[in-house]
Order: sequence, then structure tokens, then C-alpha cells
Amino acid sequence: MTGVSEIRVIGIGGIPLIKRDDDLGKLICDAAEKQDTPILDRDIIVVTQKIVSKTEGRLVRLKDVAVSPFSRQAAQDLRKCPQLVEVILGEAKSIVRMVGGHLITETRDGWICANSGVDRSNVSGGDVVTLLPVDSDGSAIRIRERIMELTGKQVAVIITDTFGRPFRLGHVDICIGVSGISPFLDLRGEKDLFGYVMRVKRAAIGDELASAAELVMGNTREKTPAAIIRGYKYSIDESAKASDIIMPMEKNLFR
Amino acid sequence: MTGVSEIRVIGIGGIPLIKRDDDLGKLICDAAEKQDTPILDRDIIVVTQKIVSKTEGRLVRLKDVAVSPFSRQAAQDLRKCPQLVEVILGEAKSIVRMVGGHLITETRDGWICANSGVDRSNVSGGDVVTLLPVDSDGSAIRIRERIMELTGKQVAVIITDTFGRPFRLGHVDICIGVSGISPFLDLRGEKDLFGYVMRVKRAAIGDELASAAELVMGNTREKTPAAIIRGYKYSIDESAKASDIIMPMEKNLFR
Repeated sequence: MTGVSEIRVIGIGGIPLIKRDDDLGKLICDAAEKQDTPILDRDIIVVTQKIVSKTEGRLVRLKDVAVSPFSRQAAQDLRKCPQLVEVILGEAKSIVRMVGGHLITETRDGWICANSGVDRSNVSGGDVVTLLPVDSDGSAIRIRERIMELTGKQVAVIITDTFGRPFRLGHVDICIGVSGISPFLDLRGEKDLFGYVMRVKRAAIGDELASAAELVMGNTREKTPAAIIRGYKYSIDESAKASDIIMPMEKNLFR
Repeated sequence: MTGVSEIRVIGIGGIPLIKRDDDLGKLICDAAEKQDTPILDRDIIVVTQKIVSKTEGRLVRLKDVAVSPFSRQAAQDLRKCPQLVEVILGEAKSIVRMVGGHLITETRDGWICANSGVDRSNVSGGDVVTLLPVDSDGSAIRIRERIMELTGKQVAVIITDTFGRPFRLGHVDICIGVSGISPFLDLRGEKDLFGYVMRVKRAAIGDELASAAELVMGNTREKTPAAIIRGYKYSIDESAKASDIIMPMEKNLFR
């Protein structure tokens, strides 16, 4: 198989339920060891937002939330829980669409997504929701440093969330935080087979790696909330930020 | 590694330059054999649109194109080649955005994408463009049947293209045709770890598999225009259609 381009996507199971201030980097390394797929040089470690948010204490109990008049009215229009709408709007810097039960917002970080990324699934107690990490790129840096410290291996880290898409049904995992790897592979200026210079193509590999990892993390994410991507060739980029993916307003045709 | 969830994504290199009426299924099987990764039962074969379009003769020489007054005016506004705009609009059933050099259309199949999927790269002669297959689900069926006939293996086929996304910079590969595998893994109604019934999540695995494959196909797609995804568990779905991904107008918040 010399010269064959191949990557492996390996789910990391057996990570215990995560509590605030857990040492996530260590739990990931230990779980990878335990299942006999220890972390190697150049692995990309993909981690779902949910467990990152939990270690960072980004949880809100809905019954403790005071609801503003605006959120109460919006909740009525959307037929959503008023406390939930309050939390969603508290995480937003603008409302992109609020119609037909859908609340699409721009998060304080600049992501455009449903419900500011506030989520009810895989949290104990029906009344608790998770928020996105305050700074997912920062979270990725901390997890990467910890894994590199524990293993002595050079790795990259990607933090993922599940987003819907305009125009296409269903959800895919995308990246909201990176460390050590650029979210883009820029092909602009490269020549194709026939010498044509590509003017547009910049592959959003951060999002593609996130989607690849979702295929092994699947449904019961709490049981497989992380994955290793092995064999993907990338350049180490110490200053990479997932937030570079956010489309600037002037380029946004669909806002 | 018992119980570890793992998938492999294997690029299929060595496929010769594709001409009209080439036996694509056979070329893929032969190339997979030759690089010592023959197709196995339950493999998912991912094929880029470009080589499918070429076998189907979906090529247009721009200098042969007669330009309508509307296309000429649009081309001037967009600062694009008038013949190219004529071809793009000929493939469209509506214009979604036409602003600042961008022409986002709804293709006759219903995909919303830049330039109706008309593309200049990796075609010989700077003057020739490729169009999307007329019926990508039908193309996937034919390729799948041929591969199953030649190998005796049960496989699924996904045809991919590279799309931009509203709100996020860069491009990802998504699926425009499938055969044998549903483009969705529907998790609605499933319970999470804590018994919470998920109401929304439907993973667009067709798109995620396409994105995973792009990671090994990469830049010089003509050299690695297909990939095998091995180890992903799926149910065979003989009536699956990628076109089910298209968001109906009434659900579309961003049209």
C-alpha cells in the first residue's frame, strides 16, 4: 500500500461522565491508552463541545433563570421554554432569524447557529442546559498543551459542535475551536492537473475533520465524546484559530 | 481494540484521466485492486462529481455557447465571462443571490450552490467547463450496480461536490448523489444517556462521509478522485436519495 493516502478515525470510548474541573486532557489520554490506541505523534484529537463545556462549568439550571419581558414574549412566539430563551439570548450578540419555532442567533463568539449552541441533551437532570465554551480556541489550546505534556507527543486539537445548515436538511459536526492545526487548507493559487490556477478553493478541513470524527462518535456522544484522527498530513500552526472561519459581515450574502 | 469504533478512509489513486463513456465502476475497482486495497463488503465508495460528469459527457466548450442578452448583462454586473454565465444560468431554475461577483443559484435538481456547480478546474483546455450530472442519484445507482457486479461485494456509493456555506468561510465536500445508503442517520426519538428524548438531531452522514473522503482526495482530485470508507456501520437502503437533503422552501429560513 505504498503511496496510498489513508486516514483512520478512531473513537475514544470509556471516558467517564465529566464533572466541572475534571482534567479532560488526562481523561482522554487514559481512555485512549485503555482501549489500546494510545495517542501518537501527529494525531488530531477531536473533542465534542459538550464535555469541554462541562469541565468549564458552562451549565445553567433553567429554574434559576430570571426571565426578561422580551424573552418571555419571544418564548411565547416561538413556543419555547421562557427560561431557555432567556439563556439563548444571553449567549447571543444578535438575532439572525426568529420565526416558526426557530431561533437562529449570532453567538458572542460570532458563530451563527440555532439557539446560540445552548443544548439540553446528554446533561443530567432535565432542567440543566449546556452553553458553548466562553473561548473554544482557548479551550483547545489548554487541552492540547495538557495532552502534549502527558504524552510527549506532538498533536493538534479540534473542538466540535453539531450545527444545522441553511439549504440542507440534517446536522453535521463542525469545528468551533482548534489548536495546532489551521481550520483551512488554502489551495488558492495552486495549479490543477492541467495547469489551471485555482482561484477560489480553500478547503475547510477543520470542519471536515469534525464531520469525519462525528461518524465514530455518533449518537451516544457521552460514551464516545472524543476521537483520534490518524494519518492526516498537516502543518503545525501554533496560531490557528477556528474563529477565522466566521464569515465577515461584508462577505455574508445570507444574513 | 475490541469494541473500538474505527473507520478508515482510503484514497483510490491511479485512476486514469476520464473520457466520455468510460466504465467508471471498472476503473475504480481496478485502481483499488492495483494499490492493494480491493473493495470489500460494506465499503462505501466515494466518487467526486468531476469524473462522473466526464464519463457522462457533461462538458461544455465555452466558445461554442451563444449568450442571451440577460446573461450578457449579468456577466457585466458580475465581471464574469458571458459564456460562463450563460452556462450557469442554463443549469439553474432560480437565482438565489447575484451580487458582488457571486452567482448563487438553485440548480434544476434543487441544490443551492455557487455557479450551479459549473466548474473550470481539472478539465483539459482552459475553455471547457463541467456541469453537474443530470441525475446524480441515478449516476450513483449505476456506479454501485457496476461495482457490485464486478466485485460481488455489497457496497454503497456517494457522489460528492465541493460547496461553500453561508456564514462559514471555506469549502467542504458534500454529497449530491447516493445509492445504497441513506444520507441521514435519524436520531429523533432516541434517548440520550440520561433518558432525554432527542427531538431534533438527524445527522447528515452523507455529507459527513463526503467531507471525510475529501481529506484523502485533497487538492489534485484528478489523481485521487475516489475513496473507500471502510468500517462505517450503516443499513443498506435501496431507495435512498441525496435529493432528500434539499430543504423544502417552507423550511428555508435563508432563501
